[in-house]
Amino acid sequence: MNKIVSSIKEAIKLAGLRDGMTVSFHHHLRNGDFVLNMVMEEIAALGIRDIKVNASSLFDVHTPLIGHIKNGVVTGISTDYMGAGLGREISRGVLAEPVKFYTHGGRPHSIIEGREKIDVAFIAAPTADNMGNCSGKYGRSACGSLGYAFADAMYAKRVVVITDNLVPYPLADFSISEDYVDYVVEVDAIGDPKGIVSGTTKITRDPVGLVMAAHAAKVIEASGLLKDGFSFQTGAGGASLAAAKFLKDIMLEKNIRGSFGLGGITGYMVDMLKAGCFETLLDVQCFDLSAVESIRNDPRHREISAMQYASPGAKSAVVNSLDVVILGATEIDTDFNVNVHTDSNGYIMGGSGGHSDTAAGAKLSMIIAPMFRARLPIVSGRVTCISTPGDSIDVLVTQGGIAVNPKNAELKERLEAAGLPIVDIFELKDKTERITGKPNELTRGERVVAEVIGREGNLLDRIYSVDK
Amino acid sequence: MNKIVSSIKEAIKLAGLRDGMTVSFHHHLRNGDFVLNMVMEEIAALGIRDIKVNASSLFDVHTPLIGHIKNGVVTGISTDYMGAGLGREISRGVLAEPVKFYTHGGRPHSIIEGREKIDVAFIAAPTADNMGNCSGKYGRSACGSLGYAFADAMYAKRVVVITDNLVPYPLADFSISEDYVDYVVEVDAIGDPKGIVSGTTKITRDPVGLVMAAHAAKVIEASGLLKDGFSFQTGAGGASLAAAKFLKDIMLEKNIRGSFGLGGITGYMVDMLKAGCFETLLDVQCFDLSAVESIRNDPRHREISAMQYASPGAKSAVVNSLDVVILGATEIDTDFNVNVHTDSNGYIMGGSGGHSDTAAGAKLSMIIAPMFRARLPIVSGRVTCISTPGDSIDVLVTQGGIAVNPKNAELKERLEAAGLPIVDIFELKDKTERITGKPNELTRGERVVAEVIGREGNLLDRIYSVDK
Repeated sequence: MNKIVSSIKEAIKLAGLRDGMTVSFHHHLRNGDFVLNMVMEEIAALGIRDIKVNASSLFDVHTPLIGHIKNGVVTGISTDYMGAGLGREISRGVLAEPVKFYTHGGRPHSIIEGREKIDVAFIAAPTADNMGNCSGKYGRSACGSLGYAFADAMYAKRVVVITDNLVPYPLADFSISEDYVDYVVEVDAIGDPKGIVSGTTKITRDPVGLVMAAHAAKVIEASGLLKDGFSFQTGAGGASLAAAKFLKDIMLEKNIRGSFGLGGITGYMVDMLKAGCFETLLDVQCFDLSAVESIRNDPRHREISAMQYASPGAKSAVVNSLDVVILGATEIDTDFNVNVHTDSNGYIMGGSGGHSDTAAGAKLSMIIAPMFRARLPIVSGRVTCISTPGDSIDVLVTQGGIAVNPKNAELKERLEAAGLPIVDIFELKDKTERITGKPNELTRGERVVAEVIGREGNLLDRIYSVDK
Repeated sequence: MNKIVSSIKEAIKLAGLRDGMTVSFHHHLRNGDFVLNMVMEEIAALGIRDIKVNASSLFDVHTPLIGHIKNGVVTGISTDYMGAGLGREISRGVLAEPVKFYTHGGRPHSIIEGREKIDVAFIAAPTADNMGNCSGKYGRSACGSLGYAFADAMYAKRVVVITDNLVPYPLADFSISEDYVDYVVEVDAIGDPKGIVSGTTKITRDPVGLVMAAHAAKVIEASGLLKDGFSFQTGAGGASLAAAKFLKDIMLEKNIRGSFGLGGITGYMVDMLKAGCFETLLDVQCFDLSAVESIRNDPRHREISAMQYASPGAKSAVVNSLDVVILGATEIDTDFNVNVHTDSNGYIMGGSGGHSDTAAGAKLSMIIAPMFRARLPIVSGRVTCISTPGDSIDVLVTQGGIAVNPKNAELKERLEAAGLPIVDIFELKDKTERITGKPNELTRGERVVAEVIGREGNLLDRIYSVDK
């Protein structure tokens, strides 16, 4: 018995893919991914049409999807995140059916509950054996964790592993095991290593970013959560990483031993592990080479599935035990609702990813963002799109002050007691608008181009076309 | 959020266990297990009745089950193996409904397909955290792999983890992850370490056993399968271990590098890994302390689930890639059907475990058994109970000759060419009976006390009561 088939085309045929079916992809190869495009090209060449694409995230490398949409090959998209290039086309209305935006925890939940059905999952595997045991830790296209691909492998009717590093059976250090895999295809390259992970992720040098980061670290210090057993997640943005750096300094100075770092792991979190700030890293996706090396070599750095990370359908997820998460925003309103889906012109340029999931789970959910970008204020009266509901956000940190959600009165008291520059969010809005002027109202288009699905499966918001 | 509840009783209540439901257990603590008895005692004390027990194996330590059967607390049993003490009572007809005997691969298949439903799974966990991440590798009750418990955790409606080694969250080296676990109970002891694993497993010193073992090793050598990439499973019986020892010597002498050892892992397989005979051990259950230590410390020694090990419902299982398995028998017939369920008096004293699964999967399935035990011949005209169908057995090795299944003509030629003492199985039967005399026919009882379910879910055979 051997699952190796000669080509992606052969695997598509053997898997029985037909018009109207759903294919799925995971995004650990990020903007370096070749697999989605290779597969969609073969599907198109086979004359198969009306395909739904369910991808844990889509990057601008996946822009060929637009051609497949225009040709009727692709008629539906579900994803947790979409790059700005693709997003612009979607916002212009290229796809008749609204995109469904999930969260990183909501996506596996929707798959397990059967609201999203996957006919054929394609797993980009940096290393695999001939029976489909596979891992992201090894090979020239190594990406580290394959956490987002587990639900696809476990629940798709057919599973195709695509690899550029076929190793002798059995691959002992498998992430996804052979019992879920139907076919294995060897290709020359599954991705461009330069696009898969950043060589390094860098902290900000921007003075505004550094002020925000210093505030963020002080908020965490004053919150009462920074003590032995502390757990933490942060994004890969420059200011978030700077906040992690400041936090590390505080933890080392005070000799605080945290329990775990979660995420989306960067080299900065690896440094914190090595420095003794954490006992463990729980990793659903690696952002840089240092994280990939760490998950490969350090047993304290563990891969987790998206279900274990963040699914609201799980008996528990790690986000439920998380103390602090630092998150970004393109827009936040006076009710603390956060938008990470659309830009200031209403174009899609992102998605929730794990934003809503960690915000809902963490004891302290912090948004870190500058008061304005390109003269557009961060705080609005009402966000264009609700990506994460305000009731799961505790605090907004800007260079011009720290706004605490009134629902968390205790936090406000603590931060005031620590002498931090607290500001009412309405005041922050006014203060910013005195600098930037009042922004023009966005005129939304006629058509719904995307639906934002809350992590529990509820319709959270709609995104409208940009018609100009 | 915290899943710790005060007692097993509390967990049973919270899980909503009611009359008529099914509870499940795994058997990695073997004859040292305290958990099944503790749980059943609490169920009985709560006045719950008509409970079905689904356990991956039952040992004589679980004899209190008989009392629960007599009291109407337990009215059904599904298992893959049953110790002789319990088996004797079942054979005498204590349980109204026939026991369902599955295989180690067929059991998870039946659970995943929903033929066997589990309401509440109780996971005996040598180490766990407060959210239910758990492992068998650590703690005073360490048992190594938890491979048989995965299906229970993944498919039961409610999952209770019972541990005597609660560690801070998160247990990074989890086997079963928190997303499957509802409740965690801390108890003084989940088992008796002396009964959980043998201190050491020992090769036979019996001359007959050594002759069989030498034959077995030579059969493997002559089979054409013993070359680089060789894979192997053997049981923990003295002669099987001796065969592994002889095989190791041949492999080292000929500088053959195998790929993997599978099973049920003993220190002998660990020695073969360390000696370079294998690249990897894939482990669904540890038999001795050396195996437990190895799976804890050696990344080449990996835990696998029962699905990955052997499920016929999996897209593939490791048994499908296995070259050679050495198995035992209490009885084998001239069609090579094997009985491992009942003894010479018809009493239940075992079960298939992974017998049928590995026999079906391996390229060479070898039975190793003495010509007779206590003057009872091993070869009969028809086995009392078909545990493994003869069409998946290739060869029977005894001290009095090697009988090859006629379906494998190539193997017979190879063994003859190697000068091995080949004997027709009918001749072997006659030869044995000339020594032992013809055994008396077994009179089977009136009632069906057990059904042997083939790995695919088919009814393979029935076991009848012993009415004397």
